[in-house]
Order: sequence, then structure tokens, then C-alpha cells
Amino acid sequence: MIKVSIIGYGNVGSHLLSAFERIPELEIVQVYNRNTEKLSKYTGKTVSTASLQDLLEADIYFLTVKDDAIAEVALALQNRKGLVVHTSGAVAAEVLHSQSNYGVFYPLQSFSKGKEVDFSNIPICLEANTKGNLALLEQVAALLSQRVYQIDSQQRKQIHVAAVFVNNFVNQLYRIGEDICEQHKIPFEILHPLILETAHKVQQHSPKKVQTGPAIRGDEKTIETHKKNLTSEQATVYSLLSDYIQNNA
Amino acid sequence: MIKVSIIGYGNVGSHLLSAFERIPELEIVQVYNRNTEKLSKYTGKTVSTASLQDLLEADIYFLTVKDDAIAEVALALQNRKGLVVHTSGAVAAEVLHSQSNYGVFYPLQSFSKGKEVDFSNIPICLEANTKGNLALLEQVAALLSQRVYQIDSQQRKQIHVAAVFVNNFVNQLYRIGEDICEQHKIPFEILHPLILETAHKVQQHSPKKVQTGPAIRGDEKTIETHKKNLTSEQATVYSLLSDYIQNNA
Repeated sequence: MIKVSIIGYGNVGSHLLSAFERIPELEIVQVYNRNTEKLSKYTGKTVSTASLQDLLEADIYFLTVKDDAIAEVALALQNRKGLVVHTSGAVAAEVLHSQSNYGVFYPLQSFSKGKEVDFSNIPICLEANTKGNLALLEQVAALLSQRVYQIDSQQRKQIHVAAVFVNNFVNQLYRIGEDICEQHKIPFEILHPLILETAHKVQQHSPKKVQTGPAIRGDEKTIETHKKNLTSEQATVYSLLSDYIQNNA
Repeated sequence: MIKVSIIGYGNVGSHLLSAFERIPELEIVQVYNRNTEKLSKYTGKTVSTASLQDLLEADIYFLTVKDDAIAEVALALQNRKGLVVHTSGAVAAEVLHSQSNYGVFYPLQSFSKGKEVDFSNIPICLEANTKGNLALLEQVAALLSQRVYQIDSQQRKQIHVAAVFVNNFVNQLYRIGEDICEQHKIPFEILHPLILETAHKVQQHSPKKVQTGPAIRGDEKTIETHKKNLTSEQATVYSLLSDYIQNNA
């Protein structure tokens, strides 16, 4: 049995906890959250606490608190033997260097409150300060997911940037699509299948190889017609991304 | 039985033909393509021709030729009684006004060569010059798909623009994600689940409501860090889309 504690009962923390509760090889020792109100929503059987002083011994402490709070919370764990890992895409492992045993356990997915998560397909990015600690994280990650990667802090930072493009910015382009539809009384659902197909296509093919549309065809006539119908803000995005496609074709 | 002919054996034409061949209520009269070599790849049992003069009588002629060729090909059908429809997102129905019976049958999807298409989930956008012609198109579309929409030429043009955003431009953002990964020796597949999740999320929720990331959080520190690690071209896209998110939050 591997004893684990969840430090932070927010979005990542609560999803991780639900997943851990289903794994018989893991014993969940404790759940911590600073805010007792948030904690009161937790109805599982694990002991919970709102005091960092009351943390029990565990093999691994999963810090799922906000990025800015990681270093501070880690201080409270400074003399523990257990492995202290954070779960952030943006923070270097080094922020935990005051621990003897530390690392990163970063599940690369966008979690939504209240939506059940199937971890089996979520990439888990691991980093640790020793081979032994890495092996322990690999053991736990393999219980959760089939996609486990060893990723150093520099790479993780880059993954985080790439994720902003393929998640946050892509969602904003969906939003522009929705705005255009609403403006012309077209149901946005008409674009749903195309959105899914576009996402599915790059699971099999490099996006470089499957680029289509007026920009890559050099169809300047269509590009000009399209831009005329857009708001100036939308047209700026249209021009920039068309140029990008053409400059990198 | 409704008699249909496919005029143009390209990407859309060949997929439409395969789908029509599986529908017992349709009789495929003929397949036309200007280029006989392309046509020789067609191994089905329908009569094929490379001459517009040899077109047989049909209830509906589906013009799946290139946008620029629609008007010209339609001329060859000028004295036919049958309904002449084009299948383009970007061309107005009016380009066929020399016909007595005309319309548009636009399947809103990105077709790939050699990849089988399930039409049942593909939106079909219909337009016709009379109610009777529209009813006929609705009858055929309903045999193919559960998603049939009446869309006028102006709306279809806007859908085409919106599709550029949610398909072509989204794919370009995937490509930037891939470039970042390659540059830092990270397998792009690590982003696959996030890409799918992002696309799935907007099937249920408005993209406006599920925007996440540093821009919407106003996390300027992370934005600045991210931009430092990008090429200047990538950073320009990053800035523009971050501003767009913040200006429209």
C-alpha cells in the first residue's frame, strides 16, 4: 500500500482524490484544504484537515494548491520524510528544493468542476529529484493512466505554453465561430461535427500535413471576401493566422 | 426512386457517391468527370462519362466541381428539367440562376481523401429556388443525415468563414503546439487528449462559458513568461489572442 495525502481540495485536488479512491493499491491518509467551507463539500471517508500543522505521515504528499502557494505550503512539510510533489504545469520542480524528496506529478488535462474525469487516457508528466522517487511516482501514475511521461521542468514549461495554444486559444477561435453564427442567426451546433473532426484528424496526422482552407490554397479572393464580413478585431485574427499559414507552408 | 447524377469526381463527389450508393431510395444515373484518368479510379457500377454533352436525364444533378467551374458546368445543363445543385460553402445559389430548377446541397465537413465518411452526423445545408425543389432536397438529405438545415446563401457564406476559424485556424494552432513540442523534444501525442477534450467541451457548452487559461485569469506574469520562450511569430499570435480573450471577457 502506498500512503498518499492530497494537499488542496480544489479542481485538480478533488479530481485526483476521486481517482485515487478507486485504486485499491493506494491508501488515502488525509485531505487538506485551507478553506474549511470548501472542505465541507468533501463527503468521502478520508480524514480531512484545514491545518498544515496536523498533517499525518504519508509516502507522497500531492500539492494541488495554486501555483503561488506551492512554496509556502511546502515549508510546512519541510521535515517530512515523504515525497512532496506539486501538480502544476507552470512551476519548476526546484521550488520544492527545500525538501529531501520532491518532484512533480502533472496531469495534462483541462479539468472542469463537477465533470467526472477518466484519468486512464490523461498524460501524466513526472519529474523527481532521485531515481527512487521517480520510480515511486511512476508506480502511482501507472495505476491511474496508460500515458506516463518523464518530463523535466523546462519541457513542462513548454508543454504548458503549447497547451495554451491548443486549448485556450483554440477555444477562443471556437468562440469567434460562435459569435459569427449568432450574428447571422445560425445555430452554432452546425459547426460541432467539424470541430470534432478537426480535433480527431490530428490524433492520427501531423497538423502540418492536413492543413486546408483558403490560406494554404493561396485563394486571396476568398480571403478578401471573408475579411470584409468580419469585425475589425476578427479580421485582424483572420489576417494574422492566414499569413502564418502561408509563411510556414 | 430519385434519380441522381454526380458531376465531378473529386473529394466531395467521390464521398457523396459512396454514400449515395448505400441508399436504396436513390438511383445513381451517372458520374461525370472532366479528367478521365481520375474517373478511371471509380470502380462502381454507375455509368461514367467525361463529356458534358453525354449527360443523361436525372432528377438531381450534384455539381461537386471546383467553385470556379460551377457556372460553366451549369451552362451545359441549361435546358434540363432536373434540379441542378452545387455543393459549395462559398458560392451563392444565384450562380445557377440560368437553370429553371436550382439550389445548394452543402455538406459542412472537411473531407479527406481515402478516409471513409459517416454522413449521418454531417450537417447538410440546403437552399433551393422553389419550395418543391427544397422539399426534394430535404428528402434526399434526410436519407443521408440527421442534421439537415435550411440555410440561405448569405448565411452559408458566414458559415464558411466561421468554419475557417474553427477548422483551418484551429489546425494552425495545433501546428504551433506541435512545433513547440518538436523544438523541445516532447512527443506531440502528449497534447492529443487535451485537444480532444477541448473540442468535446464545446459540444455541450458555449465556448464563451468555458474559457480558461492565463489570459482570462489576467495572469500577466505567466503571459510574459510564455511569450519569452516563443518565436516572434508565435509570440505575435499569443499576444493577439490573449488580448482578444481579455477584451471580450
